[in-house]
Amino acid sequence: MELISIEDVRAAAADIAGTVVRTPLLPASWDDALWLKPESLQPVGSFKLRGATHAVARIDPAVRARGVVTHSSGNHGQALAYAARSAGVACRVVVPEGAPTVKVDRIRARGAEVVLVPPARRLAEAERIAAETGGTLVPPFDDRHVIAGQGTIGLEIVEDLPDVDVVLVPVGGGGLSSGVATAVKALRPSAAVIGVEPLLAADARESLAAGEVVLWDVERTQRTSADGLRTHLSDLTLAHLRDRLDGIVTVTEEEIALAMARLVREARLVVEPSGAVAAAARLFHADDLPAGRTVAVVTGGNVDPAVLAGVLG
Amino acid sequence: MELISIEDVRAAAADIAGTVVRTPLLPASWDDALWLKPESLQPVGSFKLRGATHAVARIDPAVRARGVVTHSSGNHGQALAYAARSAGVACRVVVPEGAPTVKVDRIRARGAEVVLVPPARRLAEAERIAAETGGTLVPPFDDRHVIAGQGTIGLEIVEDLPDVDVVLVPVGGGGLSSGVATAVKALRPSAAVIGVEPLLAADARESLAAGEVVLWDVERTQRTSADGLRTHLSDLTLAHLRDRLDGIVTVTEEEIALAMARLVREARLVVEPSGAVAAAARLFHADDLPAGRTVAVVTGGNVDPAVLAGVLG
Repeated sequence: MELISIEDVRAAAADIAGTVVRTPLLPASWDDALWLKPESLQPVGSFKLRGATHAVARIDPAVRARGVVTHSSGNHGQALAYAARSAGVACRVVVPEGAPTVKVDRIRARGAEVVLVPPARRLAEAERIAAETGGTLVPPFDDRHVIAGQGTIGLEIVEDLPDVDVVLVPVGGGGLSSGVATAVKALRPSAAVIGVEPLLAADARESLAAGEVVLWDVERTQRTSADGLRTHLSDLTLAHLRDRLDGIVTVTEEEIALAMARLVREARLVVEPSGAVAAAARLFHADDLPAGRTVAVVTGGNVDPAVLAGVLG
Repeated sequence: MELISIEDVRAAAADIAGTVVRTPLLPASWDDALWLKPESLQPVGSFKLRGATHAVARIDPAVRARGVVTHSSGNHGQALAYAARSAGVACRVVVPEGAPTVKVDRIRARGAEVVLVPPARRLAEAERIAAETGGTLVPPFDDRHVIAGQGTIGLEIVEDLPDVDVVLVPVGGGGLSSGVATAVKALRPSAAVIGVEPLLAADARESLAAGEVVLWDVERTQRTSADGLRTHLSDLTLAHLRDRLDGIVTVTEEEIALAMARLVREARLVVEPSGAVAAAARLFHADDLPAGRTVAVVTGGNVDPAVLAGVLG
């Protein structure tokens, strides 16, 4: 399987400028060798805007007018809606019936059309719409352009901290970690790129050990608060991670909650559980990580205000 | 009285690079013509790091080793402690007895020595220490270097949004607003720089109308939740604002709380009440403001977690 290259990531960087915020590295007040990459500050509240923007930019001009479609009601759905509107392209987001109203409202507020279907029919409906309209299906992670777009985070990390030693990156479907590992290992081969996932959704660690994509039951992954990291790898992302990731660590639910509180109180960042796992790894598992100048990617901040208030209490 | 110039601000920009975070402009999701300048992301949680870093850098090398001293227990005290440690200079912060333990702990955590005195003796004690040690007193706003340092925010705003039409900036002692107005009016004279203050501490508006510094009783200014904006102007900052500020608007306590909630929920920024007033002006007083592409400076994020949780509830 052909993997993406640093040139693909550079091409993405050119595409996303102007739509995506160039986030700074923030020194962590509690750790002299830790910097945070706050992707929670993107307009839609997560890094997903990078991959979605690049994917939309690369659609053949002949079919662009037919729009884009996806089946994610979470951060990717919002990101694609925002990216599509920025590019003047129509967007449909297939959402499972029963999804939180706030998510549906946010997707509509970005100008996208919401298509409600029974949960089991999400993917089929998105494919049906794409076939019927001639629109382009943009998946959340299993896509070379999406991976390259997320990789721009790695590019920016090495630009801002050329002597970085360790990059900690959350692993869900593996799009972000594949892209970041591609960029960082190309630009600074001596740096380690370490994946982080919840102990309650440690399917990526198992997949890497097995050498093939291992699926965990939905009932099992639902246990973690880190809802952005419940997805499993694809063959494409597993191939990138096998080649380029230096290791993977897991964090507990309590560690995630404590890291969220730390990020809110000490870094003044509003983060969702998935966005706190990399910081949690550095806070609670430093002994399992390489030493040195470390960057933790804070992936998103779309958290229920009640959950946030609970973490502060 | 000689005012600072854009060249002074440019000199400050060179000094602060490396210590101060180059904050991005964040598009506001609820307002197509609003960008936020999130100074809450500075290592000490407020813009005060800019002025403090420049002031420390400009101390005569012959007296640097004697250290710096200030009498602010709030954001400026923390900022000076951080700036001094970054520069390898000793720092003493005079703090009123009874100040919150969390503030005292944070100043100590930055490596500064805390000197506790009765509230009324703060300034006198700081001056005594400066005289005794030969150290340099760095005041929170009534200082040309401090003003020039805060002005780097204006420089960055015009760099990132060259066609900005309106800059909204909180006014407390007037150091920030003096510096930002200096930079913005020099680089883009057609842009309006508007000060924002709480209705319950509207002494700057009154001072501008009177043409002299008007003092409000402490009992009066204590009523606002925006504790960073309770201070009054100095002759130096009033002179800058009379020359360079285009107007001033006030916001209520309810508007401040609603703006805080909006910034937490929709911009994923943890902000203190003082940090939310500029966004509040745009949210609730747009009719009193010039139209066009607007930047609101979000000055700081050092908020009591209980206050933050209350705003979210």
